[in-house]
Amino acid sequence: MPVPVLERAAAEMLDWQGTGMSIMENSHRDKKVVAMAEETQAVLLELLGLGSEWKVLFCQGGASLQFAMIPLNFAVGEVADYIDTGMWSTKAYQEAEIVGAKPHLAASSKADDFTYIPREYKYSEKPRYVYLTSNNTVRGTQWPSFPQDAPAPLIADMSSEFLSRPLDLSKFALVHAGAQKNVGPAGLTIVLIRPDFAETARKNVPHMLDYRTYIEHDSMFNTPPVFAIYVAGLVFKWLRDEIGGLAKIQKLNQAKAEYLYNAIDQSGGFYRGTARVDSRSPMNVTFRLANPDLEKTFLDEAKKANMAGLNGHRSVGGMRASIYNAVDFQAVKTLVDFMAEFQKKRG
Amino acid sequence: MPVPVLERAAAEMLDWQGTGMSIMENSHRDKKVVAMAEETQAVLLELLGLGSEWKVLFCQGGASLQFAMIPLNFAVGEVADYIDTGMWSTKAYQEAEIVGAKPHLAASSKADDFTYIPREYKYSEKPRYVYLTSNNTVRGTQWPSFPQDAPAPLIADMSSEFLSRPLDLSKFALVHAGAQKNVGPAGLTIVLIRPDFAETARKNVPHMLDYRTYIEHDSMFNTPPVFAIYVAGLVFKWLRDEIGGLAKIQKLNQAKAEYLYNAIDQSGGFYRGTARVDSRSPMNVTFRLANPDLEKTFLDEAKKANMAGLNGHRSVGGMRASIYNAVDFQAVKTLVDFMAEFQKKRG
Repeated sequence: MPVPVLERAAAEMLDWQGTGMSIMENSHRDKKVVAMAEETQAVLLELLGLGSEWKVLFCQGGASLQFAMIPLNFAVGEVADYIDTGMWSTKAYQEAEIVGAKPHLAASSKADDFTYIPREYKYSEKPRYVYLTSNNTVRGTQWPSFPQDAPAPLIADMSSEFLSRPLDLSKFALVHAGAQKNVGPAGLTIVLIRPDFAETARKNVPHMLDYRTYIEHDSMFNTPPVFAIYVAGLVFKWLRDEIGGLAKIQKLNQAKAEYLYNAIDQSGGFYRGTARVDSRSPMNVTFRLANPDLEKTFLDEAKKANMAGLNGHRSVGGMRASIYNAVDFQAVKTLVDFMAEFQKKRG
Repeated sequence: MPVPVLERAAAEMLDWQGTGMSIMENSHRDKKVVAMAEETQAVLLELLGLGSEWKVLFCQGGASLQFAMIPLNFAVGEVADYIDTGMWSTKAYQEAEIVGAKPHLAASSKADDFTYIPREYKYSEKPRYVYLTSNNTVRGTQWPSFPQDAPAPLIADMSSEFLSRPLDLSKFALVHAGAQKNVGPAGLTIVLIRPDFAETARKNVPHMLDYRTYIEHDSMFNTPPVFAIYVAGLVFKWLRDEIGGLAKIQKLNQAKAEYLYNAIDQSGGFYRGTARVDSRSPMNVTFRLANPDLEKTFLDEAKKANMAGLNGHRSVGGMRASIYNAVDFQAVKTLVDFMAEFQKKRG
């Protein structure tokens, strides 16, 4: 997370906006808290260039609860199409089955170890929606652009790339993003939804699982995660005012990713990217060593050099550098220098 | 919230446990974060005097999501008994209907405006559980003790009294409590559950709505609300180490509540408590003025004297002093002095 955001959260911990209390102690019905939440929504829509046909919801439970909420609202007893690009979309498909929807697999890159984003789809005839995971943390892939010819509105889990680039959401009806990657503290799930789509949900959904509840009560049907919303708002304003918007942060992210992917590609095969070049994620750079026996040594030495967290997801092994918005170019340069040094010693 | 807790959270905002990062930035799979979460669970069980037959879960979505999760797990197509003591238990009953359970009303004080806790129950023959709300924020009532002869395990929403007094949970199978009253920041819902009871849940519940998911993964199936868990842990340790445990905090809470209720009772009818004396809540003290036309003036002047938040719940009006754990005796004394002064001027 950006240091200025953390500094401000610390400074305001005992007295937020002159209330003499922490933001955590102010009631969510307090005018100042309501105004803060509304401003957070407005800045987010401004960042994304979205108008009032979209609504920002503050949900909880992460992507995993969205996996169930989406089919529970829109596809119980009905067909919905899923594009499988790895662990997270597989889980979304499974939850759709659990709630009694009829998920249809429109495409999958499973046979190739999820190393790429499929570009051809076998849609069902009349799906309720088409679901995809826009950035895949485990395999290090990302959709460069989204389907334009789907027979239903798109829905995407954008948790791990949200606010890292401008997005064309014209074909979408719902987007969800856990806050813990690019937005703020865990425990807040941002949902962008078109209210006209929400209106098509079935009746008799439990209130906290019904998107209309959040729309009607402006995400304050019950107490929302106020502190997380407040920190998210600080991050949104940092992105707008300090960074200069999503086109700017995309440039910064691309520069970091290119620098790291170049280092991998130009290592003469010592390092090897695991994702297909046309599907590479600028957020999660996954790679292996030609000699897998050296990987543990690489990770141990990286940790000693103060670069923890380079382990690949435990389901696939290898290495993964997660270079979200708050990671700066210098940190990537330090990693690339370390990689060159390691290759010199062990190559 | 206790000032020392907020001070510590502020001091550690940019460097938690020497990690050089905020707790919000540490992965929930990090050993230090896992250890922090485990310690938080252990201190809570210690405070409550509970053993390993209980499990602490970190959920999200507040009591309102528990209203749906409980019947979804345990009573779809089955009978469960509900005791209605006001708005929150009414909502719990309604969610049970929505998910397809068969809620049975075992008792209700609705006919008397929910001014008391019923002590006689018409249980159904074989309910799956008996549900109650142990402290009612809107009407200012609290269960002094819990049913001992129920034909099924008790389940309670204890959101607004959790950790304000020692509890005998021997008849309970599940207790839930939103963190925002006595525990910590909104966005964390503490669930205490007996794993043997969780095992009796039906199959095919969405993962994030299935208590077994939280038990099996120690509340880390997906990213939990780490910052809120961390603050809750600080509050638990404050209760144990600074206050001296739940019997001590109960004494402090009783002293505050008695002082305020006495002031109401001895006002010669100028102030009037709305809850029946045997059902009064030590957490939420609800009262009216004999002359209702003066109530707005009372609230306006209280606000000017820096006592905001004395409005009764918008569904009932009047006044409500919420004197949770973190409110000290001096604050109650200030209120009582103000009340005496107001009566002198306007009585």
